Amino acid sequence: MIWGIVNWEEFSTINPAAIFKIDVNINVPLSYYTGILGMIGLTAYAGFFEICSPKKGDTVFVSAASGAVGQLVGQFAKLMGCYVVGSAGSKQKVDLLLNKFGYDDAFNYKEEPDLDSALKRCVPKGIDIYFENVGGKMLDAVLLNMKTYGRIAVCGMISQYHLETRDRLQNLPDIIFKKIRMQGFASYDFIDRFPKFLEFVLPYIKEEKLAYVEDIVEGLENGPAALVGLLHGKNVGKQVLKVA
Amino acid sequence: MIWGIVNWEEFSTINPAAIFKIDVNINVPLSYYTGILGMIGLTAYAGFFEICSPKKGDTVFVSAASGAVGQLVGQFAKLMGCYVVGSAGSKQKVDLLLNKFGYDDAFNYKEEPDLDSALKRCVPKGIDIYFENVGGKMLDAVLLNMKTYGRIAVCGMISQYHLETRDRLQNLPDIIFKKIRMQGFASYDFIDRFPKFLEFVLPYIKEEKLAYVEDIVEGLENGPAALVGLLHGKNVGKQVLKVA
Repeated sequence: MIWGIVNWEEFSTINPAAIFKIDVNINVPLSYYTGILGMIGLTAYAGFFEICSPKKGDTVFVSAASGAVGQLVGQFAKLMGCYVVGSAGSKQKVDLLLNKFGYDDAFNYKEEPDLDSALKRCVPKGIDIYFENVGGKMLDAVLLNMKTYGRIAVCGMISQYHLETRDRLQNLPDIIFKKIRMQGFASYDFIDRFPKFLEFVLPYIKEEKLAYVEDIVEGLENGPAALVGLLHGKNVGKQVLKVA
Repeated sequence: MIWGIVNWEEFSTINPAAIFKIDVNINVPLSYYTGILGMIGLTAYAGFFEICSPKKGDTVFVSAASGAVGQLVGQFAKLMGCYVVGSAGSKQKVDLLLNKFGYDDAFNYKEEPDLDSALKRCVPKGIDIYFENVGGKMLDAVLLNMKTYGRIAVCGMISQYHLETRDRLQNLPDIIFKKIRMQGFASYDFIDRFPKFLEFVLPYIKEEKLAYVEDIVEGLENGPAALVGLLHGKNVGKQVLKVA
C-alpha cells in the first residue's frame, strides 16, 4: 500500500521517489493519505508552523477555512493557543468551522456586503497571521486589518486563477506601512519534515482531537465536475475522488 | 551637532531619544546625515542585507535605482558580488546608474513600451532579489520575472501612494508558484544595527568606493515644490532641502 502524487487514471506508471509506503497498522481511512496524512496535512503543518511564525495568543485568520488545508490550519492554531477566525462560502461551512473545527468566530463571505467590516467585527484588534487560500478581494480586506509585523502565508489564491482580469488590490502598500511578511510556499519544500509531522499529527488523530471532513465523489468519470465544483466552492471539506 | 527626524521648520523642539550626535571628526558634508549616514543609509543596508538574504552571484533588480536608497542598494549589491540591474525615469538617471553607481545594466522605464520585455532583456535568467521602491506595474512585471525562492524587500511603492485607484496586478499568484518571500520593512526596526552600519559604510566613503548623489534645493519655501517634484521623479539622487 502506497500513497503519492499520480495522474487521474486507473493504472499508473509510478516513480518510486514520488511515493510513500502506508503503514497498515495505522487504523485510518485510506483516503486520509490524500489529505490529512499526505501533502495536505504537511501543507497545513509547514505553512502554519514554519511560514507563519505563530505565538500563543496570536490572532489567526484563515480563508477557505473549511477546505482541505484550512480546517487543519484552524485546528493547529487552536492547539497553539491562538484566537482563530475563518471565512467560508456557505452557512453549512460556517457551522462546521464553529461546531466541528473549533474556530472562535467565522463568517460567510458571500453574505457580507463588505469584507472589511466583517473582519473588523470578528478581529477588531487586527490580525497577526493570515493563512491565505483565496486571494483577490479577501486579501485586499485582510491587508487593511493586519497588525504591524503581521505574517501572511500564501498557500493559494483560488478565487483568482480562473479570472482573465484579476481583482484590483488597493491596499498592497500596507505591506510597507505594517512591515508585513508575505510568503508563498509549497509542501514539497518541507518533505524532510514529513516524519516529524506524522509524529505530531498521529496522536491527535488517534485521540480524536483533530476533526477531519472529506467530500468524497465516486468514479473517475465524475472527476472533472468535482474539480469545477471545487473551483466554485461546492465541496464541503477535502475533495476526494474515489477511483475504484 | 546632531541629526534626527524633525519637522519642516526653522526652530524645533526635539525629543532627545530621536536624535543622534554627529562626529565632527568625520569629514563629510552635513547633508550626508539626511541620507547615506542617516536613516536612508540604514534603510539600504538593513533592507538589502537583512531582508533580501543576498548571496554572491544573485541577480538583483532595483527600481527607482538612482534615488536616495536605490543608489546605495545597487552599490551594496555590487560589493556583495551580485549582478545588478536598475530602472529609472530618465536618460540622465540611467547614465548615473551605469557610469557612477556601477550597475551592470539599466533601463529607462518611461521609454519601455513593455516592462516585462525590458526585464527579460536585462535579466533573461530571472531575478533572485527585487528591491521594491515603486510598486504597481513594475511590481507586476517583476513578479513574472522572479526566480523560484526569490525575495522582494518592499521599501516603498512611490508610484501608488497618490493614485485614487491603484494599478491592477495580474501576477500576484506568482508569489505561490515561485514561493516568493515579500517583506515590508522600515529602518527604525534596525536602529540597533546603526553602529554596525557605520562601521561598514564609513571606510567605503573614506576610500571613495561608494558614490553618493544628492539633489539639493535651498530654502524652506521651496520644500513643497521639491516634495511634489520627488513624487514625479524630478529629483536626481537623494532629495535634500537646505533650510538655512
